[in-house]
Amino acid sequence: MKVIAIRRENYGTLWERRAPLNPTQVKGLVDVGIQVIVQPSARRAYPDKEYKKVGAILEDDMSEASLIIGIKQVPIQDLIPYKTYSFFAHVIKAQPDNMDMLDAILKRNIRLMDWETMCNYQGTRMDSVFGRFAGLSGMLDILHGMGLRLLGLGFNSPFMHIAAPHSYPTLASACAAVKSAGEEITSGLIHEQLGPITFVFLGDGAVSKGAQYVLSHLPVEFVEPSKFKAVAQNGDRRKVYATVLRRQHHMVRKSGEPGFSREEYGTHPDRYRSIFAEEFAPWTSCIVNAVLWTYDQPRTLSLADTKRLFGSHYHNGTNGTNGTNGTDGPASKRQRPDYSSTGLKHRLIAISDITADPGGSIELSADSTSIEKPFDLYNVDTGKFSPMTFNGDGILVCSVANMPSQLPTEATDLFGELLAPLIPEMATSDATTPLVEGQFKPGLQKSIIASNGKLTPDFEYIHKLRADNGV
Amino acid sequence: MKVIAIRRENYGTLWERRAPLNPTQVKGLVDVGIQVIVQPSARRAYPDKEYKKVGAILEDDMSEASLIIGIKQVPIQDLIPYKTYSFFAHVIKAQPDNMDMLDAILKRNIRLMDWETMCNYQGTRMDSVFGRFAGLSGMLDILHGMGLRLLGLGFNSPFMHIAAPHSYPTLASACAAVKSAGEEITSGLIHEQLGPITFVFLGDGAVSKGAQYVLSHLPVEFVEPSKFKAVAQNGDRRKVYATVLRRQHHMVRKSGEPGFSREEYGTHPDRYRSIFAEEFAPWTSCIVNAVLWTYDQPRTLSLADTKRLFGSHYHNGTNGTNGTNGTDGPASKRQRPDYSSTGLKHRLIAISDITADPGGSIELSADSTSIEKPFDLYNVDTGKFSPMTFNGDGILVCSVANMPSQLPTEATDLFGELLAPLIPEMATSDATTPLVEGQFKPGLQKSIIASNGKLTPDFEYIHKLRADNGV
Repeated sequence: MKVIAIRRENYGTLWERRAPLNPTQVKGLVDVGIQVIVQPSARRAYPDKEYKKVGAILEDDMSEASLIIGIKQVPIQDLIPYKTYSFFAHVIKAQPDNMDMLDAILKRNIRLMDWETMCNYQGTRMDSVFGRFAGLSGMLDILHGMGLRLLGLGFNSPFMHIAAPHSYPTLASACAAVKSAGEEITSGLIHEQLGPITFVFLGDGAVSKGAQYVLSHLPVEFVEPSKFKAVAQNGDRRKVYATVLRRQHHMVRKSGEPGFSREEYGTHPDRYRSIFAEEFAPWTSCIVNAVLWTYDQPRTLSLADTKRLFGSHYHNGTNGTNGTNGTDGPASKRQRPDYSSTGLKHRLIAISDITADPGGSIELSADSTSIEKPFDLYNVDTGKFSPMTFNGDGILVCSVANMPSQLPTEATDLFGELLAPLIPEMATSDATTPLVEGQFKPGLQKSIIASNGKLTPDFEYIHKLRADNGV
Repeated sequence: MKVIAIRRENYGTLWERRAPLNPTQVKGLVDVGIQVIVQPSARRAYPDKEYKKVGAILEDDMSEASLIIGIKQVPIQDLIPYKTYSFFAHVIKAQPDNMDMLDAILKRNIRLMDWETMCNYQGTRMDSVFGRFAGLSGMLDILHGMGLRLLGLGFNSPFMHIAAPHSYPTLASACAAVKSAGEEITSGLIHEQLGPITFVFLGDGAVSKGAQYVLSHLPVEFVEPSKFKAVAQNGDRRKVYATVLRRQHHMVRKSGEPGFSREEYGTHPDRYRSIFAEEFAPWTSCIVNAVLWTYDQPRTLSLADTKRLFGSHYHNGTNGTNGTNGTDGPASKRQRPDYSSTGLKHRLIAISDITADPGGSIELSADSTSIEKPFDLYNVDTGKFSPMTFNGDGILVCSVANMPSQLPTEATDLFGELLAPLIPEMATSDATTPLVEGQFKPGLQKSIIASNGKLTPDFEYIHKLRADNGV
């Protein structure tokens, strides 16, 4: 009988409540004769008893299992020799934090089938699920943050009525709260001095699509990038507006030659620069950064861009004279730079930096924030971040490190939906025997990073990368 | 024509969104011929346009009004001479922060009718409304916090699905979320190692009643104090339990003589001590402190009590061995002190210190927390507070300074309901003329702290208090 085990998550933060399979999916496996051991956990989104009810064995001891699955990395002392493990190992870039774990995996003859490198039989990447959930959570987080930040700027708004994603029992109830805030927007509760609230999505992959899905519960009009400025200036405050920017919309040739070539950008990114700072940022209330970036690519918003964006009028707005912090009451007396078309000193209120690269495409990005303290106020003058601060000058930045774990129930459901069909084949893996070419279907075979004490040929480069980086 | 004005709140935090009257109540006044000026505010819970719609005049200039009303203190530069003002002045204990304001009130011949000292025609204290809202918010805050704290202790729980009160558009929608979390409790989602979750309310006034109302949306059984220990030990985890403690339930004579005399306690509080620490605290998951306290009264939970409560088993629990912070996974291996009847190292998880007295009845109380950072973890060993920390040893403490402003819409409604009937008489006040004995009905007359450049006779003691305290 094939035996697999779902381990108890015990790596990293208190927030990891996801599992690779939900109870219904476990039932499906039990029904086809696979024994499923589940390590008891008081913290998992699905309670132990639901796994038990469908026939799983609740037990700490996983020695009977040939395959052990989880979400996050496994602490070294917990790695059982000669087992097949699947989890997010985060080793393929030779990440220094995980190299001791990788060494232990090799030494203990563990076969590692990484989620990050696995595709299902339809060719879907397993990690795309959590990209989507990062997008869903990252959007909910920043809508919540915009309520707090606008209040700090002196404006009560419908965004106040959207909580952080983990405060809702389901994604559906979170989206219902967004919809209800949308009804407040439709009824005219965005203050006239704010102008219409606008969103720019950088990127259009799984992360961005997740974020767009959440925003679709507001009365949002998605417009072509070419129309964005016009709706930001003259749109209807009973709506919000959004545009989705792909590289061809804001990356232009430095030479001045028109057009964008995907091939050229891929091989010579240095020939391009972004016009985001001039053409989009001045009319953007909220940037949703959902794009992969490498250090050889031009930045979307550099520090210099940010300073220019704020600098032209950053010090010449007249603060309110209400005696407290200058953010009270109407902003009518403040200088209103034409391009922002609002009563604010600058239009850019918030950044949801979902694919956070410190110093990356949005250069001001620094360290990630946490679910407990999700927001930083970035001061453009000093370059400093103030955690959980909502009044005073600056841009609110949200870059929660583990966004998908804010919606653990549905993240489990969707991941398990991709995973469950693969389990019968994965469960045949026997790490005590040599790995044979073509032993597994390609999506699984290619996911194997280590087996029988060695890195597999496709991943031998990790040794070199470690040597190069000295880790 | 009588003219009154509602000022724009501009004192203190960004969170003050309450007003003394809502638009419907303003309409009632307009309908009887009172002109109502409303200073525009982008931050007020009710938007300007709703006041305008019912006939209020939206205007910064309040010079036409004889009576100016608001919620919080008025910055000195905004105090207009020879007007009658009503707001929460916070001067009757000679509070140092507000003495410059009081001096300006006297110097500018302002008549001050304080909400804190005012009763309506039925004899109801005006400030009882906000007591109730402190209770409502303080309970929602701590239920939200308990979700985070339990997660920090390794337990996912239904409390995770209760957000902070200001994240809900209405009190009703907040209570609906509590009810929905209650359904999760009924379905058995409180982990067996937690035992039934128990609440103790200290006090039974307006604050406590507000808090009890919120809790009533969970499947709660309120029990007599004498039954509390038994239900904490043997109750049903598909419910929560609560008891309401008045002084006679936990204050006993030091002499050992049985009984509690209200009169004796009032004149000789030193003859009593609280048995809360021995008889209730060991079986309490959450303390809701909603009782007034003066420094001559015995403490309910002293620092020494707290240390004893944690100390007997505080250092002899075996932490989890999961490699992270010791809060992962089941607590089954930890020593389980009999009296707590749970798998936790101690039963006391959280304190909602609504009527926060630093160093007061709950002696560990220190400074208030804020709406942005509502929770501190109190470390019993070091006596230190860690803001927004949920894992590690300690008790979660919530003591938000301005709880009622977390539910600004309904707090406005209920306050205005008490206030509106008083406005026609208050609007007759002319601060340029001498105040005459019996000029106003008693509830109003007695509320007047200053008029015509002097403290009224009942409040002359403030001069002496200031002299004594050197403020």
